[in-house]
Amino acid sequence: MVEIQDAFYLERGEKNYQLRGGIEEIADSITEKGIENIFFVGSGGSIAMLCAFADFFKKLSNIPVFTETSAEFAVADYKQLTEKSLVILVSKTGDAEEAVQAIKFCKDRGITTVGFVGVKGSSIYNLADHTVYIDEDISAYRYVQVYFLAFRLLHNLGFFKDYDRFANELKYLPSALLEVAKQFDPMAKEYAEKHYTDDFQLWIGSGSSIGEISRYSACVAEELFRIKTQAMHSAEFFHGCFEIVDEKTPIVLIKGEDESRAIDERVERFLNKYAQNYLVIDIQEFPLDRISDDFRKYFSPAVISILLGDRLRNHMMEKTGLGYTTRKYYRVVSY
Amino acid sequence: MVEIQDAFYLERGEKNYQLRGGIEEIADSITEKGIENIFFVGSGGSIAMLCAFADFFKKLSNIPVFTETSAEFAVADYKQLTEKSLVILVSKTGDAEEAVQAIKFCKDRGITTVGFVGVKGSSIYNLADHTVYIDEDISAYRYVQVYFLAFRLLHNLGFFKDYDRFANELKYLPSALLEVAKQFDPMAKEYAEKHYTDDFQLWIGSGSSIGEISRYSACVAEELFRIKTQAMHSAEFFHGCFEIVDEKTPIVLIKGEDESRAIDERVERFLNKYAQNYLVIDIQEFPLDRISDDFRKYFSPAVISILLGDRLRNHMMEKTGLGYTTRKYYRVVSY
Repeated sequence: MVEIQDAFYLERGEKNYQLRGGIEEIADSITEKGIENIFFVGSGGSIAMLCAFADFFKKLSNIPVFTETSAEFAVADYKQLTEKSLVILVSKTGDAEEAVQAIKFCKDRGITTVGFVGVKGSSIYNLADHTVYIDEDISAYRYVQVYFLAFRLLHNLGFFKDYDRFANELKYLPSALLEVAKQFDPMAKEYAEKHYTDDFQLWIGSGSSIGEISRYSACVAEELFRIKTQAMHSAEFFHGCFEIVDEKTPIVLIKGEDESRAIDERVERFLNKYAQNYLVIDIQEFPLDRISDDFRKYFSPAVISILLGDRLRNHMMEKTGLGYTTRKYYRVVSY
Repeated sequence: MVEIQDAFYLERGEKNYQLRGGIEEIADSITEKGIENIFFVGSGGSIAMLCAFADFFKKLSNIPVFTETSAEFAVADYKQLTEKSLVILVSKTGDAEEAVQAIKFCKDRGITTVGFVGVKGSSIYNLADHTVYIDEDISAYRYVQVYFLAFRLLHNLGFFKDYDRFANELKYLPSALLEVAKQFDPMAKEYAEKHYTDDFQLWIGSGSSIGEISRYSACVAEELFRIKTQAMHSAEFFHGCFEIVDEKTPIVLIKGEDESRAIDERVERFLNKYAQNYLVIDIQEFPLDRISDDFRKYFSPAVISILLGDRLRNHMMEKTGLGYTTRKYYRVVSY
């Protein structure tokens, strides 16, 4: 479990890349139909992942975008949601009750949906207008398929010129992430050994990183290891949250690579002065082989996903003896 | 401090209502100019408050709205932000560094700004295109002024017919909130006595309540009492976070009055079964004298603000001996 299996990762990466043509066709047909806004919808790790794409659209385009948790989306009846909306859902299992409700809500109103789904034949796989298969095992690798759709759409709408170069480089993302995993592995092991009995952990970051940070906080640390957590935006950290900083509180700051990096650095300066039990993970320190410098900032969320959702998770499972088979409630009891 | 001073509250409420005409003129001049989208911008308690208004716009109108933390807003350079945007900022002190950066960013680009500011003559008070004075002492009462602007805009744009009735009832909101404070006071006292030494608290809610819940979590419990917290959306609770529920974890669920109430009720059923150290606060149980039933859901955030940001905060200050003069970092050290 803790060992990194190169062949497994590379084979999965290659399979994901092969879906490129089909995903581009979906993006092209959506562009032809025309869209006025985009709703990114999901629960847990799925919506966390989509946060990054909402951020890219806000920075690159003038298409209004919204990120919504599935259950609220299905009851809120947002007026901005019309037949000219595009709804993009991610669901690893394809059968999360809330996501199924959300997609049915769209179907009833003639709203175009794209479902990224990890299980063929599942409810969402069958219900979505357009379906893309995503990797159900390696969370970081799911990004590849969503990058194809999102950036092809941005390209078609006139907001991203370099799509071909970008999409060609996606071929190398899985192997680059594999190298990131190897480089981070000793640090992940050390962190797990030091922190596997923590009562509480504070995770901090900003910009397109915030989704993956929230995901680790709730869907990994709490869900698997029952460690109480808080995920905090680097800018908001200074408005209340930083009063819990002391020599004991366990803190991790993720320094991203996008426009918000300066905000992360402000947190780092504060931690250097007032915290003692903290770790700074700088995404810029991980080389991404054959990835252009000007694209790196778009790949930060996938890098964070391989660091936390793969390496750190695996070492924490090893140390705690807890994992996907030892949950108390999630898919164990009815709720 | 803990005692409720009727005269003080009612006098403040009356003063706020008297600003109605001036705020409506601002809304009318903005409508005349025309707007394509709205950015709600602030930090800490200010952005928390504005979350509710973004929610109202999403549910009532087709104007794209965004909520942004000031520091990130000032660096992210969102493409959706144009001369046709309206930026609404709230700043109690009017001089928060990030908010000043945000408003300067707008001025440089000719983007219309409305500043709700608690200190006359402060930077933001002077820099905003339109300025509204807000109550600097009672957080719940600040809502009155923002309701005038937001719902007058919604009315002018054709999305809210009942503005006159709504605005007339705002005259009674401060006195209704005062009665809410009195009704909740014994429960607040009991909660503070039981929980003032907590290491961690989990706060849960949804819909338009989520901003005030986040505000209490970070800007009150952490900022003043150094209690580690997590604010969690009722829908997301079931995707990871609920694994920390046990007989000991201190939890508060706020049951709101809007479309998301059913999601809160699902959490309540779970807590009844698996938690023991929890409290459910149902906003529906507080009467709001002379407020129409169909408007109540818009006032939930102000109700939560008087409950948590006033009564609970005051009883917690009494029990802990901590408060605005005992902070370790906020406006005490440089950062």
